Order: sequence, then C-alpha cells, then structure tokens
Amino acid sequence: MDAEYETPLFFHVMGYAARAEGDVIDMVSGNPDWEPPDALRAGLREYADLEPARFQYPPSDGLRPLREEIAARRGVDTEQVVVTNGAGEANYLAMARALERGSGEEILLTDPVYPYYPGKTTMLGGEVRYVQTAADGQLDPDDVRAAASGETAAILVNTPNNPTGAVYPPETIAELVAIAEANDALLIIDEVYDHYDLSGTFESALAVDSPNRIVTNAFSKSMAITGFRVGYGIFPPDLVENAKSRHMLVNVASSRPSQYAVLQALRETGPDYYAANRELLRERVDTFTEALEAAGAEYTRPAGSFYVMARFDGYPGTLSNVERLIDEAGVAGMPGEAFGSSREAWLRFALVTPRVEEAAARLASYFS
Amino acid sequence: MDAEYETPLFFHVMGYAARAEGDVIDMVSGNPDWEPPDALRAGLREYADLEPARFQYPPSDGLRPLREEIAARRGVDTEQVVVTNGAGEANYLAMARALERGSGEEILLTDPVYPYYPGKTTMLGGEVRYVQTAADGQLDPDDVRAAASGETAAILVNTPNNPTGAVYPPETIAELVAIAEANDALLIIDEVYDHYDLSGTFESALAVDSPNRIVTNAFSKSMAITGFRVGYGIFPPDLVENAKSRHMLVNVASSRPSQYAVLQALRETGPDYYAANRELLRERVDTFTEALEAAGAEYTRPAGSFYVMARFDGYPGTLSNVERLIDEAGVAGMPGEAFGSSREAWLRFALVTPRVEEAAARLASYFS
Repeated sequence: MDAEYETPLFFHVMGYAARAEGDVIDMVSGNPDWEPPDALRAGLREYADLEPARFQYPPSDGLRPLREEIAARRGVDTEQVVVTNGAGEANYLAMARALERGSGEEILLTDPVYPYYPGKTTMLGGEVRYVQTAADGQLDPDDVRAAASGETAAILVNTPNNPTGAVYPPETIAELVAIAEANDALLIIDEVYDHYDLSGTFESALAVDSPNRIVTNAFSKSMAITGFRVGYGIFPPDLVENAKSRHMLVNVASSRPSQYAVLQALRETGPDYYAANRELLRERVDTFTEALEAAGAEYTRPAGSFYVMARFDGYPGTLSNVERLIDEAGVAGMPGEAFGSSREAWLRFALVTPRVEEAAARLASYFS
Repeated sequence: MDAEYETPLFFHVMGYAARAEGDVIDMVSGNPDWEPPDALRAGLREYADLEPARFQYPPSDGLRPLREEIAARRGVDTEQVVVTNGAGEANYLAMARALERGSGEEILLTDPVYPYYPGKTTMLGGEVRYVQTAADGQLDPDDVRAAASGETAAILVNTPNNPTGAVYPPETIAELVAIAEANDALLIIDEVYDHYDLSGTFESALAVDSPNRIVTNAFSKSMAITGFRVGYGIFPPDLVENAKSRHMLVNVASSRPSQYAVLQALRETGPDYYAANRELLRERVDTFTEALEAAGAEYTRPAGSFYVMARFDGYPGTLSNVERLIDEAGVAGMPGEAFGSSREAWLRFALVTPRVEEAAARLASYFS
C-alpha cells in the first residue's frame, strides 16, 4: 500500500478474532454490548414513516433541534456546535483547523496514544510530537509545557482516557488551556467517555472558556451506538465557521436518520440509563481486575473509559502475541504497541462483554 | 470568516427561501420530493429492532453485503468498492488521492461546475483549472487535452451533469480516460444522476477500464434519500487502499442504519421504481420547458439530471437577483454565478417539486 499514513490496527485484530476457529471473547474494540436507549429505537421507527422531505439533506451543521439540545446541555451557544460523523470527524475538523492556522505544524499527543490521532496528524501533513504520561496515565502539565513551542499547532488529549483509563483533574485541563494560549496553539479535548467516569472527578473542559479550546464528543459510547456516527465539536466562535465549511466540503452533512434517533433519545432518556451502564462497567472492572490480581498480573484500574491494561511476564504486547492469545487462550485484546512506544509490554482489554470473568480466568490459566 | 475556501451557496439560498414571507416554490436543492423505495422504510424499521451488536461500528469500508451487492451490479471486484458518506465524501477521497500522488497540483473542472468541486480542490491545497463547455453543456475532449499537462492531478467530471443536464457520450469518456492516462492524472467521474438519464445514451465510465479511472456514485438521488449519506467510490486496485485509509481516518465508518436500509432497498427494489421516477422527471421537464418556451425565455432541455437552466433578458443570475425572485415571484432557484463564470446570466431550477407548472407560470408572469 502506498498510503503515507498508517491504518489503525483495530480492524486488523477484529478481523483476525472473527476468523479464529475456537470460541474467542472479544475485548478488542470499544463497542458497547449493552442496550441503546429505548427512545433511540423508537426514534428510528418513527423516522421510518416520515414524509420524503424528512429523508433529504439536513442542515450541513446538523439538525437545528439537535444542536440546540446539545448546546443547552453543554452550556454553549448553538452556533458553536457542529454535528459530525462521530467524534472521529470532529477531531479531524479540529486538527485540520489547527494545522491550517499557520501557527505551527506539530501536534502534541500523549504516549500512550489513541491510534487514530497520529494517523490523522500525518494524513493532514502535520508532525507528531509525543509527551510521556505517568504509569497511571496522568499527564504532567510541565512535560507538555516543555514540549510546546512556536511549532505547536495543537495539543490533543482524551479524557477519560483510552487506553489508560486516566481522568485528568480540572487543574491539568486549566494548565493545558494556558499552555495552548501561550503558544498560539489549539487545545483539542476528546471527551467521548465522559459518561463513563468511574472516579466522580471528571469535569468537562468546557468549564475553562478559551478561544483556543475545542471540545469533541459523540453519542457513540454514551448511547451504545458506535455505528450510528453522530458526534459533535464545540468550537470557539472564531473557529466554528471554518469547521462547518470543511465538514460541508468533506461530508455535505451527517446522516439524518441517525441524528433524528439521537435527538429523540437525548430528549427522552433520563440519567438512570447512563448510571446503569456506568455501574455495569464498574462491576466489570471489579471482576476483571480481581481476577487479574489473583493471577498475579500487573494491571491498570481505570478511573474512566472502558479499558484495562494488563502486563504478563515475558509476553510483550505485540501484534503477534495478540494473535497467539486469540488462538491459544480464546481472548482477543489490543496490542500495547498500537498505542505508542510506552506500553509495548502491555495488552489492552475492552470491558464490553458480559464474559469478563471468564476472560480473566482464561488469561490466568494461560499465563499460570 | 477566515476559511481559505468558500462555502457553497446552496445552504444560503435555501435558508433565504425558508425565511421568506410569501409562498415560495423551492427549486433550489437537488432534494427529490418523491417517495423512497418501500423496502428502504421497511429496512429502517427492521434495523430498529436488531440486537445491540448491530448498532456498533460496521466495517470501515462498508457493510460487506452492501459492498458485494454494489460490486455485483457494477461488475467490479468487491475490494474496489468503498462505501462513503455520500458521493460528496467519495469525491473528496478521490481528489485527495489525486493530489497526494505527486503528479501535479491542478484539478481540471468544467465551467459551469458543480460548486462543491472547486471548494474541495482549494481545501485540499490544489489549484483549479476550468475547461469551458458548449452551450448545451457538452465537453470537447480537445479542450481538455489542451488544458491537461504534467501539472494535472485529476480531471473531475459529472455526468449526467449538474447543472447543464448534459450526458457525455461514451466517446467523450473514452477520450477523457486516455487524456488522464497520457498525463499520469486520475479521471474522476461522478455519476450520481445515472438513474435519471432521459436521453437513453448514458453509459457508465466503468465500461472503460483504466488504472487511472475512479467512479463515484450514491443512493442519494436514485433512492430519494439525500439525507441518508450513503455513497460509494469504485477505485482501481492500486488506489483503493489509500482511499480506505483516508475514509477511516476522517469518518471511521459511514452510518450503519443508513447502510442497512439501503442494502434492503437495493435487494428488493425492481426497475419499475427507478423508471417511474425517471418518467415523473421527464414529464416535469416537458411541463416546465413548455411554459418557459411560451414565455419566450431561453432555457436548456436536460438530457439527464434534475435541472433546467433559464435566462431572462436583463435579469442576470446573481445572488441578489435570486433573492429578488424569491421575494417578488415566489420561485427559488440557484444563481448561475454559483456554477462558475460561464452561466452568470442564467438561473438554475431543480425540478423537485410537483409545482413546476405553477413555477413556470409565475416566472412567465413576472418577466412578462
């Protein structure tokens, strides 16, 4: 392949697991296995019977009532909200804007990193510069400050974090905003796991107003609909028109049946739905980490997001070891090497299966 | 706004028409007003009741059975098909690849032009070079040959054409392929109006095999679902991996409920559905052009697509004249100046309303 940027490994590993002969517990992707809101299904059924005009282009920046609903919940102006094809597109729009501003060509990413971020950076012609995080995934603002310069176009972080499970405290976010401002760079904060804060400490970066701060999010995880592709970016007033233009020129608009169903779900789903899924995740974290503990493995306990990282002696997290684990232990995870250089010894497991206890038992048995 | 590329005027004019006080006949957008296939609605209803796993990420390049169905119908290998967020994204992927190949920075477009094309070119860092078309919208391959050079990254055409209604004969397509090959450029052919060929002469560019030829399309027009955002690109084997990578890095995947509904509709909808809509369009062309003829206006009679262009003495197709027509005549069209420099005197009317006869009468009365 002659692409100048790499394809993330997710789809490769998922394909390998799907083709495996034995029973494999899939802990690869961030696809929730729980139910979407009832109102989402009802919204889709309702949409199916609407008149033809409702099947045509929505406004490019999203259905107006959906943008208003998002704006009201997030405490921002409706004009700042651009509905995108998932958080993936929102990050793409934000990164493209950062690189087009003429204020640097580097994007600062954390190590470990969500694999789409470096791929997007390279695709957009930018340079990646990594900042190491601590063993628990926390980011030291001093390290970011030291890495930032006039070359910095953007700082891109994800909290609650995939893959480390770290939730950055408000002080870290405030410092990142200040560092972005001081370097005429944009701070892009991907908060797609905000409903899965298990620590009770998460606070959105929207709390720190700044003309340099872009927040991205999606309903993919919070409503268990990664395939619907409804996300959004909240842009400062000076950056939003450009984001809307690029969105229009790339995608024209995001899919309307998905937007309609999400709007219905957003309006009619109470906090109990989100709380129940968070509790389910908390129980799985307990179950999985207890079994790893009993097996004597090293592991991370997430403060948020879906992921536990684990390390087994003499079994580094390479792609070939992941494939061996699929074939020999019947558990599919992601190789740590997919997330940058700092977690090459580790494997990442997504807790999106009811069989987390069995998976942990299989791992314990395999490595014992 | 500080964007380096222009926002197409569509949304501006649609917004103006929507805010107008009087009754306005909307002939601005290419949004069909006819029914989608019954099986499409049934597919959406069916999807709404599927298990949560079916609400998660589809394969990035599209649901496999949908790609297979497209490939079988188009006579290509399934691996060549990338399902995209409408033809808009397919064109974006193709143009990006053309500009990344290192074989020129110019994209040749026709004048008149579909307004998204120059916007996309500029956004991607390319240069636009226009080739004039004849009064009937036909493209002379000699003109393209004269404009092409080592600087040419791509030639991008649209047939059946928006806005001229021209359908390029197979000989033109064959020559365009040869010109692209001779200049190490890509030929990108957007065939989104293929089901609305009123001339009986349309032939897909897939008939001319070439490693330089990319065909883009969508179900937006053929199934009357511009808001669903399901399109596709058919790429030569050497170009498809890059297109898939960029698609993944920009959008992760296209919306799954939309893909599912389109797949059901594709499988279960017979040729009668498409023929009936084509006949409806043909009748509207007759009605509208007869009324324009009676009013003494100059106009184009489309061989395909949804559009009639008309010229009224002393009333050039500027944006302000379009707005005046909305306010004073109750008919909303698109300004000719939106489509490049060659049709500045003209207005474009989309025949996507049952009120084409009344619209023509209003125009005749206004200009008499």
